[in-house]
Amino acid sequence: MMSSMLVVGSTAFDTLHNALGTHRRVLGGSAVYASLCGSFFAQPKLVGVVGRDFPDEVVESLRQRRIDLGGLEVAPGDTFHWEGRYSDDLTSRETLKTELNVFADFRPKIPDDFRDAPFVMLGNIDPELQLSVLDQVDRPKLVVADTMNFWIDSKLPELKKLLRRIDVLVINEEEARQLAQRHHIKHVAQTLLGLGPRHVIIKQGEYGAMLFVDEADAFNAPAYPLDEVRDPTGAGDSFAGGFLGSLCTASDVNTESMRSAVVAGSVMASFCVEGIGPERLFRLTSEEIKARTERFRELVRFG
Amino acid sequence: MMSSMLVVGSTAFDTLHNALGTHRRVLGGSAVYASLCGSFFAQPKLVGVVGRDFPDEVVESLRQRRIDLGGLEVAPGDTFHWEGRYSDDLTSRETLKTELNVFADFRPKIPDDFRDAPFVMLGNIDPELQLSVLDQVDRPKLVVADTMNFWIDSKLPELKKLLRRIDVLVINEEEARQLAQRHHIKHVAQTLLGLGPRHVIIKQGEYGAMLFVDEADAFNAPAYPLDEVRDPTGAGDSFAGGFLGSLCTASDVNTESMRSAVVAGSVMASFCVEGIGPERLFRLTSEEIKARTERFRELVRFG
Repeated sequence: MMSSMLVVGSTAFDTLHNALGTHRRVLGGSAVYASLCGSFFAQPKLVGVVGRDFPDEVVESLRQRRIDLGGLEVAPGDTFHWEGRYSDDLTSRETLKTELNVFADFRPKIPDDFRDAPFVMLGNIDPELQLSVLDQVDRPKLVVADTMNFWIDSKLPELKKLLRRIDVLVINEEEARQLAQRHHIKHVAQTLLGLGPRHVIIKQGEYGAMLFVDEADAFNAPAYPLDEVRDPTGAGDSFAGGFLGSLCTASDVNTESMRSAVVAGSVMASFCVEGIGPERLFRLTSEEIKARTERFRELVRFG
Repeated sequence: MMSSMLVVGSTAFDTLHNALGTHRRVLGGSAVYASLCGSFFAQPKLVGVVGRDFPDEVVESLRQRRIDLGGLEVAPGDTFHWEGRYSDDLTSRETLKTELNVFADFRPKIPDDFRDAPFVMLGNIDPELQLSVLDQVDRPKLVVADTMNFWIDSKLPELKKLLRRIDVLVINEEEARQLAQRHHIKHVAQTLLGLGPRHVIIKQGEYGAMLFVDEADAFNAPAYPLDEVRDPTGAGDSFAGGFLGSLCTASDVNTESMRSAVVAGSVMASFCVEGIGPERLFRLTSEEIKARTERFRELVRFG
């Protein structure tokens, strides 16, 4: 039987403007990307909220990826909508519109049959809500959380409380620097490890990701040099979903399985950015994942 | 007998301002860093120019590293002097003063007994001078060249001529993008390979380096996460020197030896930045190089 991973986060429709054009009502949100990517390794149990406008066929497409939607609440109103414009080189983006809609009142309710999930992914939402999820679950084996500058600025005490209760912090490099108030990556990692989590993963975008466990153990996973990057939306959440999914398949959580999981996360992020929104993830196969994992190995191999 | 590597480039005194203070008359220049780093693997033969102010004890310290100074010209006047200020996080720098002095009239003259060096490093100087070096040497096995934005702006036709005559281009990421007029690393690499060199190495500073041979062969070497970075001056030249030195020790120039050489370059760059100017390189041991190479291996290893 597949291990299950609880995924709590946002479910959204995105409007994306990039060099390829304008893409409307693109399925998005951290819980969607993380669940889709986790589904290749484990059984994701998604907790989130959508509005009455959320189409049945999208629900069906997620179910076909064997995602358990027993925790997907349908609330009166519209689904969370984010609109943004990417720079032509896709390295920066500007938010044009954030319509929280039903997401404004989101209070994650973990269904009874989700509470014993051994692996928990807390997507990038209010740290108070992330804490409330931890109050509703039964001693998970591993909790992963993501956060962002908005919460570092506005809810630092709650975020620090959260950091003492999670196992793995997954965070963007810029935000890691902001939280640690240091620049050099080793100092940043040491500072963040000092705040509670046993593992810190610093996402470096087009430069890959680094895993830190303690002073003696650092691991670097490069980003895969792709022929074409179409849309970076969801790459970080895809990383987290692939990472946690891979850990679900391991017999034990240790240095070795953590390293393989970081590579799995990088592989899933590399597929994510090949398509607009999550389109590439819907037509991805396990064989493609396996082949790219081997290419990652080749990318860093030396005699 | 050790293979010999011809190193042509600048020899300088630098004045460095950084968070640790002001450091005056620090030995510098691309030929110095590359020769020092190459000396742990091969016999460097340095070609450059210094002024009459260049102290005998510095010459002696380079000789003690077994660097052949038969091509070091002493000209009337002062040694090239560069003064710069680094940002506190050491990620950017501003040039305060460039006094070319004797370097203004530098015309590399390759001594007769240097002409058969199998490996040639063309440090970052005027591409016309780099071309003149190639006219003076006997069919080397491998030619490596570095360049910079200044030459891309001012001597593009000469630079393009040079690119058709070298084997390996080693270039900073920003400058690689400028030369290729592309953004994504794979497109940049493909464009640069199309200009002539069989191998392109893109240096990414605190993110490591990538080697591209063709579409099917990419290699990523991370930067080593150091406890402390004191001064990035010379890191790129240290990379090039370690890279070429390592190739000198290989029985053949092929994918495997190129990958190991990129790691050797990254190892030498990691030592370089641990001290102000080249001080760390003068008190470095082969055992330390070997140990850090093993830590690089550990940094990227996964099951």
